Amino acid sequence: MNNRRRRIYEGKAKVLYEGPEPGTLIQHFKDDATAFNAQKHERFEGKGVLNNRISEYIFSRLNEIGVPTHFIRRLNMREQLIREVEIIPLEVVVRNVVAGSLGTRLGLEEGMQLPRSIIEFYYKADKLNDPMVTEEHITAFGWAAPQEIDEMMALALRINDFLSGLFLGIGIRLVDFKVEFGRIYDPDGQVRIVLADEISPDCCRLWDIETKDRLDKDRFRRDMGGLLEAYSEVARRLGILVDNPAPKPSGPVLVQSK
Amino acid sequence: MNNRRRRIYEGKAKVLYEGPEPGTLIQHFKDDATAFNAQKHERFEGKGVLNNRISEYIFSRLNEIGVPTHFIRRLNMREQLIREVEIIPLEVVVRNVVAGSLGTRLGLEEGMQLPRSIIEFYYKADKLNDPMVTEEHITAFGWAAPQEIDEMMALALRINDFLSGLFLGIGIRLVDFKVEFGRIYDPDGQVRIVLADEISPDCCRLWDIETKDRLDKDRFRRDMGGLLEAYSEVARRLGILVDNPAPKPSGPVLVQSK
Repeated sequence: MNNRRRRIYEGKAKVLYEGPEPGTLIQHFKDDATAFNAQKHERFEGKGVLNNRISEYIFSRLNEIGVPTHFIRRLNMREQLIREVEIIPLEVVVRNVVAGSLGTRLGLEEGMQLPRSIIEFYYKADKLNDPMVTEEHITAFGWAAPQEIDEMMALALRINDFLSGLFLGIGIRLVDFKVEFGRIYDPDGQVRIVLADEISPDCCRLWDIETKDRLDKDRFRRDMGGLLEAYSEVARRLGILVDNPAPKPSGPVLVQSK
Repeated sequence: MNNRRRRIYEGKAKVLYEGPEPGTLIQHFKDDATAFNAQKHERFEGKGVLNNRISEYIFSRLNEIGVPTHFIRRLNMREQLIREVEIIPLEVVVRNVVAGSLGTRLGLEEGMQLPRSIIEFYYKADKLNDPMVTEEHITAFGWAAPQEIDEMMALALRINDFLSGLFLGIGIRLVDFKVEFGRIYDPDGQVRIVLADEISPDCCRLWDIETKDRLDKDRFRRDMGGLLEAYSEVARRLGILVDNPAPKPSGPVLVQSK
């Protein structure tokens, strides 16, 4: 069914196809999970379906509060129609609680509440292991203009505020998350920065507030098992109905609903 | 002769002693050279004498152009009188040309002229291998205030301009350098940021413009030999007379004067 479509880009967890109209693309969610710069790789049947639905839900709500995104509408179980953007080659990470590389790098204990939210930029370059960079590098090498950095930071903080509230409401602590932004060139010559890529448990750290259970990709990174059950639980709490995304759950269901 | 003095701090290449008056310290330059977070260590007889003189020269010239520093005056071959400051726990690196960790981190070729000078901050923590940090980390953890970061960056750029010119005049390209800053609390309650520590071939990359010879600590990091000869050459070109700093030069003199 996808055979006639031109594939524009294939990433670790998604494929982009040419869209039905100029300036649109189809974003296809795969079942692949990778970690540690793809040194670790596994397929989880149904993950793509879950992430497509969760990301649809979050991007729709962000559009509603006026955060511009590339999202147009979901097309089917694994695909969504998006606006074509020029991706800014940066991963923008917002952290509320110490976890992952921040703890290692600065010698801080995992789980420590940060004095305030911290934004970090990583240069998207698999060969270099996505190195952390600063505004100095970003502007010196022309990856983004100072005004674009300001805009990304402002949007990242709005997204953080909104998602922190959204997840708190369903018993989940938003520990950190990664987003990507892109440029849209309007016909009048204006350039707009919009949220691109996806927001799903693949790129957030989500901790159950009561049980401290990890409801995110750390289950895969740390071989904890129960990844699909965790993602399903996030979808369930967000009120998203996903039909049978994981037809053959294997092993115990580690994540209990509240 | 130093026995009665209270030692305040001992670092890898320098010792700080209590000064003759409150608010002063004596900065003593050792002959030790370390690299790769002190995994590599060697003594070069006379290096401390050279660095004391070179740093005296540079700090004096910076004072003259209005860059505030901790330097008061040189006391003897290895020691200088300085103002006591509260060290800001950051290494401030200014880069004009790709070398060292920047090339590795961003996949850039050594020797490439940067589109513009880049300032980087590293958190001074040997245990953590001095990780690179951004303004976000610096302000979130209170290592320096936003205004202090601006001040350090402005001073670092002035120092870079001045030193680039100074070294260019004696046939040397200033590739990059590291400085540290400290706070002085004035009696009227004002806090001032001043340049502290030292500026010497230990913390600069200095390339001979014609021969591309390294006249800096990379000679030690890369086992190139001729470290003392290189430092002496820098001192000589700066017009500094150092009496017999290296009494027993061993091996060939790799660095020729122009």
